[in-house]
Amino acid sequence: MKKYISETIGTFSMVFCGCGAMTINEITNGSISHVGVAITWGLIVMAMIYAFGEISGAHFNPAVTIGFAFAKKFAWNQVPKYILAQGIGAFFAIFILWFLFPESQFLGETTPAENFPAYKAAILEFLLTFFLMVVIINVSTGSKEIGTMAAIAVGGVILLEAMFAGPLTKASMNPIRSIAPAIFTGNFQYLWLYITAPVLGAIVAVSSCKLVKNDNCC
Amino acid sequence: MKKYISETIGTFSMVFCGCGAMTINEITNGSISHVGVAITWGLIVMAMIYAFGEISGAHFNPAVTIGFAFAKKFAWNQVPKYILAQGIGAFFAIFILWFLFPESQFLGETTPAENFPAYKAAILEFLLTFFLMVVIINVSTGSKEIGTMAAIAVGGVILLEAMFAGPLTKASMNPIRSIAPAIFTGNFQYLWLYITAPVLGAIVAVSSCKLVKNDNCC
Amino acid sequence: MKKYISETIGTFSMVFCGCGAMTINEITNGSISHVGVAITWGLIVMAMIYAFGEISGAHFNPAVTIGFAFAKKFAWNQVPKYILAQGIGAFFAIFILWFLFPESQFLGETTPAENFPAYKAAILEFLLTFFLMVVIINVSTGSKEIGTMAAIAVGGVILLEAMFAGPLTKASMNPIRSIAPAIFTGNFQYLWLYITAPVLGAIVAVSSCKLVKNDNCC
Amino acid sequence: MKKYISETIGTFSMVFCGCGAMTINEITNGSISHVGVAITWGLIVMAMIYAFGEISGAHFNPAVTIGFAFAKKFAWNQVPKYILAQGIGAFFAIFILWFLFPESQFLGETTPAENFPAYKAAILEFLLTFFLMVVIINVSTGSKEIGTMAAIAVGGVILLEAMFAGPLTKASMNPIRSIAPAIFTGNFQYLWLYITAPVLGAIVAVSSCKLVKNDNCC
Repeated sequence: MKKYISETIGTFSMVFCGCGAMTINEITNGSISHVGVAITWGLIVMAMIYAFGEISGAHFNPAVTIGFAFAKKFAWNQVPKYILAQGIGAFFAIFILWFLFPESQFLGETTPAENFPAYKAAILEFLLTFFLMVVIINVSTGSKEIGTMAAIAVGGVILLEAMFAGPLTKASMNPIRSIAPAIFTGNFQYLWLYITAPVLGAIVAVSSCKLVKNDNCC
Repeated sequence: MKKYISETIGTFSMVFCGCGAMTINEITNGSISHVGVAITWGLIVMAMIYAFGEISGAHFNPAVTIGFAFAKKFAWNQVPKYILAQGIGAFFAIFILWFLFPESQFLGETTPAENFPAYKAAILEFLLTFFLMVVIINVSTGSKEIGTMAAIAVGGVILLEAMFAGPLTKASMNPIRSIAPAIFTGNFQYLWLYITAPVLGAIVAVSSCKLVKNDNCC
Repeated sequence: MKKYISETIGTFSMVFCGCGAMTINEITNGSISHVGVAITWGLIVMAMIYAFGEISGAHFNPAVTIGFAFAKKFAWNQVPKYILAQGIGAFFAIFILWFLFPESQFLGETTPAENFPAYKAAILEFLLTFFLMVVIINVSTGSKEIGTMAAIAVGGVILLEAMFAGPLTKASMNPIRSIAPAIFTGNFQYLWLYITAPVLGAIVAVSSCKLVKNDNCC
Repeated sequence: MKKYISETIGTFSMVFCGCGAMTINEITNGSISHVGVAITWGLIVMAMIYAFGEISGAHFNPAVTIGFAFAKKFAWNQVPKYILAQGIGAFFAIFILWFLFPESQFLGETTPAENFPAYKAAILEFLLTFFLMVVIINVSTGSKEIGTMAAIAVGGVILLEAMFAGPLTKASMNPIRSIAPAIFTGNFQYLWLYITAPVLGAIVAVSSCKLVKNDNCC
C-alpha cells in the first residue's frame, strides 16, 4: 500500500507543478517562459524521485511501469494498481488546477503544434520516451553509485526533452499526464498518440538494453 | 549555540540573495528576469544546505522547523530559538537590502498577484510547502546516499516552485521570509496567509509521510 | 560489441536532441531560445554518460576517443570502430531530423557566425575542446567519488560552452556531430576546422594533464 | 609545481569562459543573455573544481587563497605563488579574448553600474565573497560525502551571485579576475574595491566559521 500512495503523491506533485507551470504561463501571458516551464518539469521529477525512489521506484508514468514489467524488473500483476495510483494523482492535480484557474483553456493539455502532423508527433513522442527509458533502464541497472544519481539523470532528460520538443508536442512521454488534462478540457482528439507512442518507446528502449548489458537488464 | 548561529547566517544569506534578486530585478527593470530570480532562490538554498546541513539541519524556515518538531525529529523546546535565529537573519538581510536599495518599494515582499484572490493564494502556498516538506521529510529519512543529495533535491524544489508559482504568490513557503520584508514595507495585509499556509502545508506533508514510511518518519 | 552499440545509441540520442533543439528553434522562430538550446546539449550529454558511461566510457565524440587513445587509456585499434559507431548514430539522428523537419535549412549544422573569420573559429573550437578534454581526462583519472560526478562535470562543460561560444561557432567540439548535418545540407566549407581543431584541442589537453598528474594520466 | 600549473590552467579556463561569455554577449548584442552569462560562470567554476580540486584545491581566486591561509588550512608562504599562478592564467585568458575580439570595449571588466555608488558596490562585493567563502570553508571542513559535492555547491554560489548581483557590480568576488581585464582596458578606477572587498569578505567568512564549527575550521 505504501508503494501505491507514493506513486499517487509523486504523480500528483509532478502533474500539479508541471501542468501548473504551463497553466500559469498561459494565464499570465508567458511570465514563466518556455525555458521556465521546462525547468519546472525536470526539477519536480528529480525531486520526487529523491523523495519516493526508495519506496515505489518513482515511476509516476504508466509507460515506465510497463517498461519495467517488460524488462521483468516489475511484476505484471502490479501494473494495473500502479497505473490506477498514478491516475488518481494526476486527476486530482488537474482538478485543483481547474479549480484554481478556471480561466485556463488548456490546463497543460498535450496536442501537437499547428502544422505539425499527428504521425510526426507520434514519432517524436516515441523517440522522447525511448531516450527517457534508455536512461532509466541503464541507470537503474548500473552500479550503486550511479543509482544515487538516477534522479538527476532522469530529471535532466525530462528537462531537456520538455525544452526541445515542448514547442511541437508538449513533450508528454506519459499517457496518464496526457489523459488527466484531456478529461477536463474534453479534447481527446490526439490522446491515442500520447498513449501508444510512449508505451512503444519504453518497450523498444528496454529491448535495446538487452543489446548493451549482459544480464541485469531484462 | 553553533546551531542557532548557523540558522542565522544561513537564513541571512538565503533572504539576502533571494529577496536581493527580486529587489535588483525591480530597480533595474527586469535585468535579472523571472527565470533568473527563481534560479537564485533555488541555488542559495542548495548552497546553504551544503554549508550548514551537518550543523543545524539547515531549516532556515519556521514552517520546516515546526514540521520537523511535529515529526518528532526535532525538540519542540528548541523551536522558538530556531525561529528567533531565523528571524534575526532574515531581518538583518532585509535591513541591508533596504540600506543599499532605498529606491525599492518591495524589497522582495510577498503578496498575491492582482486578480488572484487571497484564499487561492493560501491554497497555493499550502500546496507549495506541502511539496517542499514532502521532499525534505522523505529525503531526510531515506538512505545515507540520498541524504548527500538532499541539498540538490530541496534546492531544486525551491527553484521550480519559485519558477511556476512566483508570478502568482511569490512562492514564499516560509513565514519568516515573508515577515521580514513586510516590516520594512509596512504591508501586512496578506501576512496571515504567508504564515498559516506554509505551517499547515508542512504539517500535512509530515502526516502523509506516515502513510509511506514504516518507522523513520514521525 | 556492446561498447559499439552503446556509442551508437548514445551519439544518436545526443545528436538528435542537440541538433533537434537547434532545428526546432530554427523552424519555430526561436521558441526554445539560445539558453534552451545550450541547456539541451548539456543535459543530453550528462544523461547519456550516466546511461552508458560504465559500458563504453561514453565518448560519443571522435576527438575524445582519439584523446583517450593518445593518453594510452584506450586501444588505438578500437578507435576506428568507435568512430564508425559514433558516425552511424550521428548520421541516423540527422536523417530522422531531416525526415521530420524538411523545412529546416540547417539541421543543426556548424558554421562560424558571419564576420567571424574561420581561423578565429578554429582557435575557439580548439580552446573549447581543450577545456572539455581537460575536465574529462582529469575527472576520469581522479578518485572514485569524483568519477561518479563525471557526467555532471562533463555535461556542465558542454552546456556552458554551447552557451557562450554557440553564437560564434555553434560550439561543436566534435567532428562527427559536425559531419552528420553537413552530409544533409551539403555545406562542407568549414568542415575542415570542425574536424582538426577539436582533435588538436583534445590532444593538447591530454598533454597538459601530464603536467599536473603523476602517473594516472598518459 | 603540479599545484601551480593546476591553478594556472583552472584560472585560465574560468576567466576565458566567464569573461568570454560577457565579451561575446557584448559584441553580439546580448545573444547569450544575462541568464546565460551567469550560468557560464557557475558551470565553469564547477567543472574546474572537479578537474583540479584534488590537485591544488581549486582556488582560482586570491581572496579564497588568502581565506584558506587565514584559516590555517593553507601555508602563508605558498600564497604569493598561488596568486602568481592565478594571475598568469587570468592574464593569458584575457589576452586571447583581446586577440579574438578586438571590437570589445570591456573584455568582461568589472565596474559598478551607473548610479550605483562605489561604496555600495564594495559592500555588495564584500557580502558576495562572504557568502562564497562561507560555503567553501564549511563544505571543505565537512564530511567526505559533502566534500564530493563541493564543486556543485561552490559553482552554484558563483552562478546565483553572478545572476543577482551581476547587473550592479558584475559579481567579481575575485581580485585577479578583475585585474586581468583592467590591464587591457586601462580602466583602473574601481579596482581598489574589487581587490579589498573580496579579501575582507573571505576573511570575515572564515572568522564566522569559528562560531559554528568546533575544531576543523581555523
